[in-house]
Amino acid sequence: MTTTPGGGLPEPVLVVGTGLVGTSVGLALRAAAVEVHLRDLDRAALAVAASRGAGTVGGLGAGGRTEEGDPVRLVVVAVPPGRVPQVVVETLATHPQAVVTDVGSVKGEPLRALAGQLSAGDLARYVGGHPMSGSEQSGPWAASGELFGGRAWAVTPHPGSSPAAVAAVEALARTCGSDVVTMSPDEHDLAVARVSHLPHLLSVLTAAQLAAAPAGHLTLSGQGLRDVTRVAAGDPALWTEILAANAPALRALLVGVRDDLDALLAGLDGPAGDALGAVLNRAVDGTRRIPAKHGGPARAEAVVVVSVPDRPGELARLFGDAGQSGVNVEDVRIDHDPGRPVGLVELVVQTDAADRLVAALTARGWSAYR
Amino acid sequence: MTTTPGGGLPEPVLVVGTGLVGTSVGLALRAAAVEVHLRDLDRAALAVAASRGAGTVGGLGAGGRTEEGDPVRLVVVAVPPGRVPQVVVETLATHPQAVVTDVGSVKGEPLRALAGQLSAGDLARYVGGHPMSGSEQSGPWAASGELFGGRAWAVTPHPGSSPAAVAAVEALARTCGSDVVTMSPDEHDLAVARVSHLPHLLSVLTAAQLAAAPAGHLTLSGQGLRDVTRVAAGDPALWTEILAANAPALRALLVGVRDDLDALLAGLDGPAGDALGAVLNRAVDGTRRIPAKHGGPARAEAVVVVSVPDRPGELARLFGDAGQSGVNVEDVRIDHDPGRPVGLVELVVQTDAADRLVAALTARGWSAYR
Repeated sequence: MTTTPGGGLPEPVLVVGTGLVGTSVGLALRAAAVEVHLRDLDRAALAVAASRGAGTVGGLGAGGRTEEGDPVRLVVVAVPPGRVPQVVVETLATHPQAVVTDVGSVKGEPLRALAGQLSAGDLARYVGGHPMSGSEQSGPWAASGELFGGRAWAVTPHPGSSPAAVAAVEALARTCGSDVVTMSPDEHDLAVARVSHLPHLLSVLTAAQLAAAPAGHLTLSGQGLRDVTRVAAGDPALWTEILAANAPALRALLVGVRDDLDALLAGLDGPAGDALGAVLNRAVDGTRRIPAKHGGPARAEAVVVVSVPDRPGELARLFGDAGQSGVNVEDVRIDHDPGRPVGLVELVVQTDAADRLVAALTARGWSAYR
Repeated sequence: MTTTPGGGLPEPVLVVGTGLVGTSVGLALRAAAVEVHLRDLDRAALAVAASRGAGTVGGLGAGGRTEEGDPVRLVVVAVPPGRVPQVVVETLATHPQAVVTDVGSVKGEPLRALAGQLSAGDLARYVGGHPMSGSEQSGPWAASGELFGGRAWAVTPHPGSSPAAVAAVEALARTCGSDVVTMSPDEHDLAVARVSHLPHLLSVLTAAQLAAAPAGHLTLSGQGLRDVTRVAAGDPALWTEILAANAPALRALLVGVRDDLDALLAGLDGPAGDALGAVLNRAVDGTRRIPAKHGGPARAEAVVVVSVPDRPGELARLFGDAGQSGVNVEDVRIDHDPGRPVGLVELVVQTDAADRLVAALTARGWSAYR
């Protein structure tokens, strides 16, 4: 198998489907100087992806070979979930020397569908994957080569997959900047049901209750509502496919949620707060189990809050002054409303650097505190 | 009624309860040069609030008068929800020339409790309020004079309240930088059930399902999960009180959620996606009804995405270059993970300024796009 000197990634790579994820894969691979070819039935999306530098269009001739006669070595199938098995079968046939992977959100059923119609030899060249880098946006315009950096990328080998194919998909994930998380396809589906599909559905249930609200009630909306409902703005057609495809795992969790909901309803009537408090406490425990963004243990971070006037240049001045302090800002949240003269900026820094940052900013005239 | 020249705010003001909200009120009023006195049974919290400049401790003598002999004109009751009626009754008695308000999350039942035990004259001096400025943090250390800026502050007059008392509470909200939203107490409770308490509970139901998850499943956590579950980390004791106090309004909504949940469960089994798609589409409509942060109609904003190396000073350079372009950055989101060499910064700007910003940043060597 042809490999690049660096990461063991076979190339040239063919990306089929130039939506958000496919285009982002192309951009990430091109940034690593990997040869990428693009394919999409949607010519407009394809043109946008190519114009953004995600890869080459029309560079594969008969037999799926490049102009130099090299066969495609890795195919990344990034089409809508319902079309994944069909496109995987087609590309395994068209590119007999390629490893084929996909980026679909569900892995168990598609694998069983493939196993039913592929030879053992072809099935060995397929290994599913799933980058955990969603967005409520979609399409090649929203793509970014940085989409996968530091995020988990699930790689889901199966009993019939070849070690070389698994290694190729792991190299793909790493080349895109992701942390490889290896799981069986069914284990993956249970995991994403809990950490992705269920949160999406409960965000949806929250937002659905807004549709019929008296308009005046929405005037009291705050940041909590916006956070809880952000993902509910995602494409309903795509999510209907994703959720329906993972129905068994999701159903089990939804039944658990309904049990909790019934307990809450009973608790609201009964002796105040017993059942309520139990669920609220379990939820706090749950939030503490969410790992830090890079997948490792949560780190000690502190928040420094700074008042910033709503004028062009003030943020630059703040970050300039913060930079002078030598403290690296890990994350930022600006709580700014139009028409409000001052915004609050939260700077997330390492705990041991927070006092230093407060002192440095205060010395430069900012109102800053931990 | 004594008023300040500016906003019609009667003073001196007494803040009872120096937690997050009470201390923040004190800080906001002190920033407007209003005379503020502080009271709290928790001496440590009181000391922290005073040290942060939220007001004076021990400045009221017998009869609740200042050293100059001025009677307290406005009392802000910022104690835990369950204690609100009792403290309102006490402060109305102790400060017979004061308007008394509170910042509790529920308004209908507490008002009925007060109406049952106050004279009409005393009841006229009470008008409830509710600043929509929650946080998953608590305590005077987390307080900020900017907490209320640009947020809604519900003011809830009742048939027996005096116009002067209503005006005083409105002046309080405005002096703290909030937008006044006037509603009846019961209407308020219906509104916050939908835009605050229900989202909190569904966030809790999501997070509660994480408590028993296999640890490996959490490795696939992404930003969506963090957003949906952020508020679920809030203090369970406080939220048990809040939710139980608004049980009737919340119950009606939770029954609606359970109906949707049952429809989803049925839809997962049935012909793929019909019921599912209906709820998902209703949710998208719901998210579109959430007003912009300042309470007005949503504005046309665009997101410019920029790749930023993970080094001190790079954010300063970015905001400096953005500032040079003359475009005002309305909001920022940094998608940065430790150990990742480059972060993505999303700059939210007015739509008509986005292209100008992209051009200016690109000209300065940034990788920026809409």
